[in-house]
Amino acid sequence: MPTYQAQIYVTLRPSVLDPAGTAVQSGLHHMGFDGVEQVRIGKYIQVTLTAEDEATARQQLDQMCDQLLTNPVIENYRFDLTVKATADTAA
Amino acid sequence: MPTYQAQIYVTLRPSVLDPAGTAVQSGLHHMGFDGVEQVRIGKYIQVTLTAEDEATARQQLDQMCDQLLTNPVIENYRFDLTVKATADTAA
Repeated sequence: MPTYQAQIYVTLRPSVLDPAGTAVQSGLHHMGFDGVEQVRIGKYIQVTLTAEDEATARQQLDQMCDQLLTNPVIENYRFDLTVKATADTAA
Repeated sequence: MPTYQAQIYVTLRPSVLDPAGTAVQSGLHHMGFDGVEQVRIGKYIQVTLTAEDEATARQQLDQMCDQLLTNPVIENYRFDLTVKATADTAA
């Protein structure tokens, strides 16, 4: 089965406050970076997985995100998927 | 001054263990996602900033990453930069 590399970007929904981001923004201002207007902190998750085909991989990643990797109430996610190795090259 | 939107991707260096990623991988296996081979968890930081030009924005972002946003001993980073609004459209 081919191996896929997924890059998952998890962000807080725009309506949700981000205290950590606000703290970082404040810290950057104190350090002299006065041009910083907003900081939002999310997660960047890299998943390597094998699946029968790309559609299956995408379906599984959606399930992983909904069930474990994100909190759908307060977070959004999107992911990029690339083929890392086909069954032939991996054999 | 134009406004820039930066997307910063912070990842653990490949040689650094990622216990959180390992725990998530184990959780995914328990949920039946047997095809998952590796999980690495990083940060995805969105920074909105104003700067005189793109070169200045990139220089400031490098400084922010080195001094506050990442731990250079154990983490790598890269960022994408897009123009959000020019001085004209922002005025």
